[in-house]
Amino acid sequence: MRILDTKSFSVPGFKAWGIHCGIKKTDKKDLTLIYSDRDAAMAGVFTKNRVKAACVQLDAAKAKSGKGQVIVANSGCANACTGKRGLADARATADIAARELGVNPASVYVASTGVIGEFLPLQKLEAGIVTAAGLLSPAGWEQAAEAIMTTDLYPKLSIVQEEIGGKIVTVAGIAKGSGMIHPDMATMLCFVMTDVNIASPLLKKCLLSSVETSFNSITVDGDTSTNDMILCMANGAAENKRIAAGSKEQKKFQACLDSVTRSLARQVVRDGEGATKFVEIVVRGAKNPAEAKRAAVTVAKSSLVKTALFGEDANWGRIMAALGYSGVDMDESRTDISIGKAKLVEKGLGQGKAADREAALALKQREVQITIDLHKGKAEATIWTCDLSNEYIKINAAYRS
Amino acid sequence: MRILDTKSFSVPGFKAWGIHCGIKKTDKKDLTLIYSDRDAAMAGVFTKNRVKAACVQLDAAKAKSGKGQVIVANSGCANACTGKRGLADARATADIAARELGVNPASVYVASTGVIGEFLPLQKLEAGIVTAAGLLSPAGWEQAAEAIMTTDLYPKLSIVQEEIGGKIVTVAGIAKGSGMIHPDMATMLCFVMTDVNIASPLLKKCLLSSVETSFNSITVDGDTSTNDMILCMANGAAENKRIAAGSKEQKKFQACLDSVTRSLARQVVRDGEGATKFVEIVVRGAKNPAEAKRAAVTVAKSSLVKTALFGEDANWGRIMAALGYSGVDMDESRTDISIGKAKLVEKGLGQGKAADREAALALKQREVQITIDLHKGKAEATIWTCDLSNEYIKINAAYRS
Repeated sequence: MRILDTKSFSVPGFKAWGIHCGIKKTDKKDLTLIYSDRDAAMAGVFTKNRVKAACVQLDAAKAKSGKGQVIVANSGCANACTGKRGLADARATADIAARELGVNPASVYVASTGVIGEFLPLQKLEAGIVTAAGLLSPAGWEQAAEAIMTTDLYPKLSIVQEEIGGKIVTVAGIAKGSGMIHPDMATMLCFVMTDVNIASPLLKKCLLSSVETSFNSITVDGDTSTNDMILCMANGAAENKRIAAGSKEQKKFQACLDSVTRSLARQVVRDGEGATKFVEIVVRGAKNPAEAKRAAVTVAKSSLVKTALFGEDANWGRIMAALGYSGVDMDESRTDISIGKAKLVEKGLGQGKAADREAALALKQREVQITIDLHKGKAEATIWTCDLSNEYIKINAAYRS
Repeated sequence: MRILDTKSFSVPGFKAWGIHCGIKKTDKKDLTLIYSDRDAAMAGVFTKNRVKAACVQLDAAKAKSGKGQVIVANSGCANACTGKRGLADARATADIAARELGVNPASVYVASTGVIGEFLPLQKLEAGIVTAAGLLSPAGWEQAAEAIMTTDLYPKLSIVQEEIGGKIVTVAGIAKGSGMIHPDMATMLCFVMTDVNIASPLLKKCLLSSVETSFNSITVDGDTSTNDMILCMANGAAENKRIAAGSKEQKKFQACLDSVTRSLARQVVRDGEGATKFVEIVVRGAKNPAEAKRAAVTVAKSSLVKTALFGEDANWGRIMAALGYSGVDMDESRTDISIGKAKLVEKGLGQGKAADREAALALKQREVQITIDLHKGKAEATIWTCDLSNEYIKINAAYRS
């Protein structure tokens, strides 16, 4: 597998573009169009929030067909909690794009992100789709990635290539994240495009597996959104022999998909609202994988741990306290905690000032690793998160103004 | 029931005092002593965190006797995650107090709050206990309440009187809170003193019921601590006829206890770290009480909701999103949301700019009420919380320095 520079982002058979159509009050881009020049296999993962935006309801139904050709995404308005009118607006958006691109409306998927409870400005969207359709380009991915941003500071892209079945296959994705990032939802917006030839049931299986170790392993603020989705389109333009289930080709494709989703997930955390640090939390020695993940997520979500990280304070007591209320099987007197290479806690006891000083140095870095060993079993999990800073409060106190 | 001014805080048969003994780096008080002049019935509720401080382990064992006479509490050092030495130090603290006050060590309860992972300075504690024992006073409660404070901005006291069985009975409590406040733990430190005559099993029953609607109904930052406990001592000095289970006297006492614990719980939230607003979240129309509470707690814990409250932004979409991921049975199209008297959402739909403006005015107040009706059943729950401000980050980023 070869990781490409995102500057040369391009996927055979796909075009994209992003523009400002007037949903956002500023002149920032707010409309993305992604187009496959042929029918593609489509798989989707959607938020588990019971309150689902219109686009999520619509796409989840469409995804059952396993087919798709177009994604139209807007930022600035979530079209969530908008009732029947919201659903009609999402359908109308798909119809407009279908008409402009000459495809079946059933092949058009809609995604939205932004403020909840406001209606889509359909006229602006229609004009925007017409314009964007005329600008679609094989090299338009930076624009596309920019136009789905909300509080993101930079666009998120990732692209890899691999030889599969004698053909060079490309797997590439764009994502937006920032706030409301938390495991066990379909997470923010992420669109993955590949020219591999694969049937949609197998594509869905690969996508679900990939999401588990990428978007379902990150947390920014513990909130899960109404609009999050990951869509993956495979249009077969690489003309490889269709990937067989359980084959080594499937493994290769899975590795490519994992690389792209993990890269995008890490970019989302790095760009977490107000984040000053990227934090990897590894829990080892848990009884089973679910407990390993639960322990890591609980530490990652703790406001007290996150503020201590922001303050570069090796306050391991807060980590221990979080493990204690995580609900997993743990025993203080067996637990080890390290920050960076500094072993702060062994068998539940602090290891003194030298370890504290070493940990304090590790905490000054932009990337921090916290390793916890529960010594209760053999399961392990890794969660990526960020610290909680003043900036998070500032961004979220004033989000709508 | 009569609510007394805390300036005349006094409970027959009890004395207290608080001093600075040198645990805290500043000259602030850090040692509290509470003494009953006779053997008292004792009931305790302790943290559910698996990582329990030495004092919690010790007191939970002692509380099985249902008896007690002394509480010695320190702030500045939690004596948590301190292993065998920590347990020995907690025992030694009880022994010193027992010796100074001429009581059985089994009657002395120990409480600690502060930084985790550091050992108690026993010599300073010993000198402090000797000094405080000499200063014990029937009017020493303000000092006692001050000496258990950590990041609290003010001491928390509450006192009521009631005629029970022909006698005037006093129920009074002191508490400390601030960070790490969350339901389903025994919550921070709270000591309740009463001169009522009641057997300890019934006292425990009353205390558990009282905690459910007070300390288990508040959340500041979602973290639960290793040290939290509520101790309730009833010394019988009022000489009422011992309260019988199920009697109207029990109801009267329960009302007094509820008034004190609810007052202290509300004070804890009002003084939440960095809090600028006191927020009451009422969920109605839930399927059952557990779901009502879960929905209210999920909204109360959401960082996005809490920052919007700080920003005085009536961003009801975040409330709806939190309800959606709370896991309770809800249906967006049935849900109503009000802030103050402004009905922002009816049957899942925003009610327009006039309602937004009215809610914005309500959000400018120091006290805010959010009312949610799920229209799924008849159960109801109330949770008290505060907003999430820059100040919370500042306090918790620099807590140990």
